Parts: sequence; C-alpha cells; structure tokens
Amino acid sequence: MFLAEMFGTMVLILLGDGVVANVLLNKSKGQNGGWIVITAGWAFAVMCGVFTSSALGGPGSLNPAGEIAGIVAGGANPSVAIMNILGQFVGAFVGAVLVYLVYLPHWAETQDKGLKLAVFSTGPAIRNTGANLLTEAIATFALIFIVNSIFKAAGSTLPGGLGPYLVGALIWGLGLSLGGPTGYALNPARDLGPRIAHFVLPIPGKGDSDWSYSWIPVVGPIIGAIVGLILFKALAG
Amino acid sequence: MFLAEMFGTMVLILLGDGVVANVLLNKSKGQNGGWIVITAGWAFAVMCGVFTSSALGGPGSLNPAGEIAGIVAGGANPSVAIMNILGQFVGAFVGAVLVYLVYLPHWAETQDKGLKLAVFSTGPAIRNTGANLLTEAIATFALIFIVNSIFKAAGSTLPGGLGPYLVGALIWGLGLSLGGPTGYALNPARDLGPRIAHFVLPIPGKGDSDWSYSWIPVVGPIIGAIVGLILFKALAG
Amino acid sequence: MFLAEMFGTMVLILLGDGVVANVLLNKSKGQNGGWIVITAGWAFAVMCGVFTSSALGGPGSLNPAGEIAGIVAGGANPSVAIMNILGQFVGAFVGAVLVYLVYLPHWAETQDKGLKLAVFSTGPAIRNTGANLLTEAIATFALIFIVNSIFKAAGSTLPGGLGPYLVGALIWGLGLSLGGPTGYALNPARDLGPRIAHFVLPIPGKGDSDWSYSWIPVVGPIIGAIVGLILFKALAG
Amino acid sequence: MFLAEMFGTMVLILLGDGVVANVLLNKSKGQNGGWIVITAGWAFAVMCGVFTSSALGGPGSLNPAGEIAGIVAGGANPSVAIMNILGQFVGAFVGAVLVYLVYLPHWAETQDKGLKLAVFSTGPAIRNTGANLLTEAIATFALIFIVNSIFKAAGSTLPGGLGPYLVGALIWGLGLSLGGPTGYALNPARDLGPRIAHFVLPIPGKGDSDWSYSWIPVVGPIIGAIVGLILFKALAG
Repeated sequence: MFLAEMFGTMVLILLGDGVVANVLLNKSKGQNGGWIVITAGWAFAVMCGVFTSSALGGPGSLNPAGEIAGIVAGGANPSVAIMNILGQFVGAFVGAVLVYLVYLPHWAETQDKGLKLAVFSTGPAIRNTGANLLTEAIATFALIFIVNSIFKAAGSTLPGGLGPYLVGALIWGLGLSLGGPTGYALNPARDLGPRIAHFVLPIPGKGDSDWSYSWIPVVGPIIGAIVGLILFKALAG
Repeated sequence: MFLAEMFGTMVLILLGDGVVANVLLNKSKGQNGGWIVITAGWAFAVMCGVFTSSALGGPGSLNPAGEIAGIVAGGANPSVAIMNILGQFVGAFVGAVLVYLVYLPHWAETQDKGLKLAVFSTGPAIRNTGANLLTEAIATFALIFIVNSIFKAAGSTLPGGLGPYLVGALIWGLGLSLGGPTGYALNPARDLGPRIAHFVLPIPGKGDSDWSYSWIPVVGPIIGAIVGLILFKALAG
Repeated sequence: MFLAEMFGTMVLILLGDGVVANVLLNKSKGQNGGWIVITAGWAFAVMCGVFTSSALGGPGSLNPAGEIAGIVAGGANPSVAIMNILGQFVGAFVGAVLVYLVYLPHWAETQDKGLKLAVFSTGPAIRNTGANLLTEAIATFALIFIVNSIFKAAGSTLPGGLGPYLVGALIWGLGLSLGGPTGYALNPARDLGPRIAHFVLPIPGKGDSDWSYSWIPVVGPIIGAIVGLILFKALAG
Repeated sequence: MFLAEMFGTMVLILLGDGVVANVLLNKSKGQNGGWIVITAGWAFAVMCGVFTSSALGGPGSLNPAGEIAGIVAGGANPSVAIMNILGQFVGAFVGAVLVYLVYLPHWAETQDKGLKLAVFSTGPAIRNTGANLLTEAIATFALIFIVNSIFKAAGSTLPGGLGPYLVGALIWGLGLSLGGPTGYALNPARDLGPRIAHFVLPIPGKGDSDWSYSWIPVVGPIIGAIVGLILFKALAG
C-alpha cells in the first residue's frame, strides 16, 4: 500500500508538475500553451496516478486530505491512512525530482524565479490568507463531494477503467473552474512534496520556496475534504 | 429529490459560473483562456452536477425547462417537477454564492461591470430580442432532442458512469457550436438563479443585473425544450 | 430510415457548421477560438448525429460516401442506401438553415464573404484540383478504414453509448491531423447540402457559393471511402 | 501480425505527423494551433493506430521499444517481436509518405527547413545529448509503466473499445507534460521511419535530416521501456 500510493503520487506529480514546466519554462515546446494545457495535463496526471496506485494494490487516493477526512469522518483505519500519507509525500517528492530531470536544460534558460517555483508548488494569484484558504477549502470540498457522488451514482456497473478516467475528468473540471485564484492544490502532498524538492534541488537561479504560503494548500484542502465527506455522508447515507 | 436537484444544480453553477470567473476576472490564472476553456468547464460542470443529483437519488435534470417540457409533453408528475424546479433555483443561487466566495479578491480587481455580470448570467453578443430568443430556443431544442437520443440509442447496455459523461460531452458540443450569439443559457435556473445572486451579493463595483434581458434565457429554453421533447416523442415513439 | 438519417445529419450540420459560425462570424462569443474549437465542435457534432440517427432506427452513417462504398464494396442494398443518401442531403440542408437562424444577427456584422461561405462549406487553403482531391480522398480513406477497425476491434463487448463517442473521437483526430489543406469535408452531404443552403438563403452581403470547387468534396470522399472499404475487407476479412 | 502492426503504425504516423504538419506548415488551416492541438492529435493518432492493429489481429504495440522491452524483460517471442518491429518501421515510413501527399502544396509554401523536418521527426528544444536522452528515457519509462498499470488496474471488466481510448488519453497526458524538451518520440519507429521518409522524399526546399540526433529517440525510448517494464513487473508481479 505504501509503495502503491508512493508510485501513484510519483506519476501524479511527474505528469502534473511536468505540464506546468512545459507551459512555464523558457524554450519548452509547450511554452505559453495556456490554461487548457495546464488543466488537461493535471487531469491525465490524476487519471494515470490512480491507475498506477490501483494496479499496485493501492486505493488510488493520492491525497492526504482525503485520508484525513477518511479518518475523521469515514471510519478509515488510521495506521493504514498514515502509511498511505507517507507514501504520498515520498512519491510527490520523487515525482518532482523526475520533473527536474526531464526539464534539466530549461532551468538555466528561465530567468523568472517565480515561474521556477510555480512548476513545483502552487501560489496565489492575489495573496490573501483568508481568501486563499477559503478557495482551497471550497475546491477540495467539491473534489471530495463530487468524487463520492461519481462512484455512488455509477454504482456497481462502472466498467474497469472508467472510474479513474472519470476522476480525471472531474479534476479537469475543477482546474478549469476553481483553479484561477490559487492554482488548485487540493492536496497537501501535491503541494508540499514538490515544494521540499524545490528547496533541496540544485535548480540554477532559483528563489525562495515561499514557505509563508506553504501551510495554506495543506490546511485548506484538509478542511474542505472533511466538510465534503461529512456532508456527502449526511446526504447520501 | 429537492435536495438532490438542489445540490446537483449547486455543483453545476459552482463549476459552470466558476469557469467564466476564471476566464473573465482580472488576475485569475485562467484569464483569457478562451472559448475552449469556457465550454470544457461547462461540460464537466454538467457532468458533475448530474452525478451529484443521481448520487443523492435525484433525476439529474438540473433544468426547469426540461421539467416543464416533461409536464407538457412527457407525462411528468407536476408536483414532483415543481419540487425539482425549486431545488434547481435554490441550488443555482447557492452555487453562484460559492463562486463569489472562491473568487473573492478578484471582484475588486476587475473594472468592467459587464464582465462581472457575465460570470453569473448570460447576455447577448448582439442584442436582438427575437433573434436571441430564437437562438436559445433552437439550442435548447437540440439539447433535449439529443439527450433523449443518447439515452434511447445507448439503451440498456449503457454502463454506470457513462451516461452523465455523455451528457457532458453533448454540453461541450452545444457550447462550442451554438453558444456564440447568447452564451447558451439553455436553462432558466442556470441563468436566473445566479442573476439573483449577482443582484443581492455585495460585489465591489458591480453594475445592474440586466433584468430587461433576463426573461429570454427563461422563455427561450422552455419553448425549445417543449418542441424538442414533442418532436422526439413523435419520431422515436 | 430516411427520417433517421435526415435528423441525424441535421444534428451533424447544426453543430458542425455551428462551430464554424461561432469561430468565424464577427462578434460571436467564440470568435477566433482556433482550430481546437473547430475540431472539437465537429467531433461532438458527429457523435450527436450518430446518436440521433441510431435512436430513430437509422444506421448512423450520415455520409453518402460511406453509403456508396457500401454498395460498391460492402454488399449494401442500393435502394436502402439511396433513401439514406436522400435523407442525408435533406438533413444537411435543414441543419444549415438552422445555423443561419441561430446566428441570424451575425451575418450582417461580418464583412468577409469568404468567411460567410466557409461557415457552410469547405474550401481549400491552397487551390489545386489534384492535390485537394487527393487530400479529401486520403482523409476519407482513413475515416472509413479506421471506423471499421474501431468496431471490429471493440467487438461485441462495446457498451451502448461508447460506439458513437469513439466515432466522435476519430473525427476529432482526423480534423486535427488531416483538416489543414481542405477543411476536411469527408462527406458529400456535409459539403453540398450546406452549399445549396448558402446559395438559396438570404444571407446579407454574401458572395458566390464557389461551385467550381464543389465537386471535389463530393468525388474525393467517394473515392477514398471505396478504397478504404475495399482495403479493410481485404485485410480484415 | 506484420500487416497489422504495419497498418496500425501507418495510421499512427498519418495522424501523428499529420497534426504537426497542420500546425507548422504555412497556409494550413490549423497553423499555429498550439500545443493542445499537437498533443490531442497524437493522442487520437495512437488510439486509431491501436484500433487498426487490433482489428487486423495485431497486438497494437506500434512501438519497437515496447517490443524490445518485451524480449528483454517480458518473455516475448523474439521472432514475433522482430516481425512486429519490421512492420512498425515500414508502416511509419508509409504513414509519413501519406502525410507528404496530404499536405502536398504546403511544402513549397513553407520556407523554414526546420519546420519541414519537424513534421516528420522530433528534435530537441535545447540540444544536449545527455539531457535529451534522459528526457526520452524517463518519458518512455512513464509510458510503459503506466500503460501496464492501466490494463492491470482495469482488469477483465474493461469493455471493448475503452482500452485503446485510455491509451490515447495516456499519450495525451505524456505529450502535455513531458513533451516540452524533445517533442516526445517515445518510439524508435515513430521517429526513424519518418526521418527516412524526409530523407528520400522530394520535399521542396528541404534541409538535412539531422542524422546526428537520430539515435537519441531510438536509444532513449529503448532504455526507458526496459526499465519501465522491469520495474512494473517487480512491483506488480
């Protein structure tokens, strides 16, 4: 389970941070590809990460906020959840290192320190602690509420392969619609794991890792996930 | 059923008006993302709304025009339909309030009053009562005619999960193809609910809510839905 | 069957020519949406047209080139095929009239006569009879060869609803990849039906209907479809 | 099997190199369509190629790197694999010739020799042997690791038709996320077959075929595929 969530989250970040690198780094072939490229890339990243975790026997959660909500409101086994969370953070870190390697010659060609950090971690369009926290909480509420709806509505006739695809479609939608103010972390591992990688990797001309913002994409998603799961269970039994 | 349609329509508007906010509001990360972003966002919004309503035991209609067509031409129970419609309007209003909160710091940063209204409600590219009404009627005719075709053609072998996805694909197509003149309301709750939210919310520097246009995205879709359902039933039995 | 193919092709052209109107006509909300918008719109147009024809008991062909190939190389019943073709041409004409109505105020706002024709019918990027014919033939060869491959490969476990969706995905791919030189008619009814509509409709400030080119999107697709079906049958039995 | 992989790879390159031609060649209707067009085109190209090979009784591999990994780490029959590889190279060459024909009048209209080569074969954004090799190896590692995950996770309930579609979705994701530095060959036949076609075809005003780079999209993918298959088998049994 640790390995499943680790490799699943590695794939998530390799493809997810990868698409940001492609759009933001200088001389990359996808430079300035726009919001449709960013959001499509994250959608397929989540789809592939869920398939990877599932293939290796994992739950395909990839998200510590979901794990914590599961403990608080879903009757999840805390020791299993903690192992999953550890795997998710390690996988996110490894995935970010792989993105660093895939785009190795492009870091020195990119002047803007902010763009280099943005490949790894999210940041706010307008810095405002309360508003940024609220955005991340509502967006993650939507993620948890809707993902539970999908699997309950699709029910037992959902064919193999369609589930992770629909989760990817949901992520595409969340990014398109709710990603504007904060870049939609929705997931503590997705944000903090690559931020640590940004901090330790020898990226040419990098700036600071914006630690003052780093707690928002951790706390906001956890709050949103807990509220989303509680509300879904109250409504849908 | 009231709650199912309420939460389904809330999700529809949270993601649907959300993508418009992302593309139109100043400093948002998806600003100027273009028509492909707008239409993809609404497609996934509908998909997620249908899943949500279905998971909570609702019909996944989300659309008062479809409810009214069902009463007029489909033998629907009027008291059930009226409860659904109430849920749809309440949900649309709540969804619009959530979009206001998600994009909280961006309203004051956006000067154009028209853009701020456009996040909530549709408006015509060229103002012309007859033509705008006709556009909304034909587009909603296509919605009802095609959605009935999808479920009849797919039949009983449609797997769980694929139905809402195909409805989303249809919405993507309708937006791409028929959304140019009026912004494709297709749905009285989708337009009027958020327009009321625009009217009552304390949006910085907002303009009027364009009430003179507000009846067109209500009446046009109702006409189109009734004609579409009658024609489909006449042709397909 | 006549009605099924007629309404299916009507839906095809309503959404297909509709997306071109959205991207090309002045003041439309999707103006300058780009090639991804055009090709996505046609993909969903085909998907919706196939669903419509299927729901009404038709074959979902929508394409006289496929019908003729079926007579020449597939053992199709000619009198059935001729009724289908008639339905396809009538439906394409009606669909184009609906597009004219949906975008009614936008025709007078658009100066370029060529753009107005391009909403209805295809035209070459570089006018060259032999090359344009070859492009249409190869692209339609690919359409027929691949669509047969999809249904043979998917086989009897293809769920209801997935077939028309995959045909839409194929059309998206063909437009993206082979649509550059001639605008990918691939279908005599798709091109000639709307061209006749352009000729007869009272479009403000319209130009000629480019009849000298009109035979190429008829003959090219027929040649390509016949070769594609013969080759597929030779290879796949 | 030779014919199946040959026609499958022909379709792959017809649609794959086709979309690059559409975006890069002068006067093409999709010119400057951007990274979303390129990556969507390759996604559907792979989907269609896999369907084609499968319909003709082939494995739908289309990729010599996968074949070689299968011999080295997956117990594949070498003589079958070699026949598949031959078919893949022949098909890739034929597909490139078809792209040349589809875009026949556009070569003379395009001045930039580099763009004409880029239609056929990949090239690096920043030329750096070690880094380019590493990018191709990691991206192909991801391809093989994830494609195996998809089929293992989806399992025996994967409906006919969904498998090739999901492989296409994976390719879309890989292009969006990892295609920036080298243009994501991921496949020796995809790159070398069309490069040979570029070398022999009478393309007006063409430049050299960049043979000094040509081994990287062969060797990189082979290394990545072997590592990916070994790791997947070690983890997933």
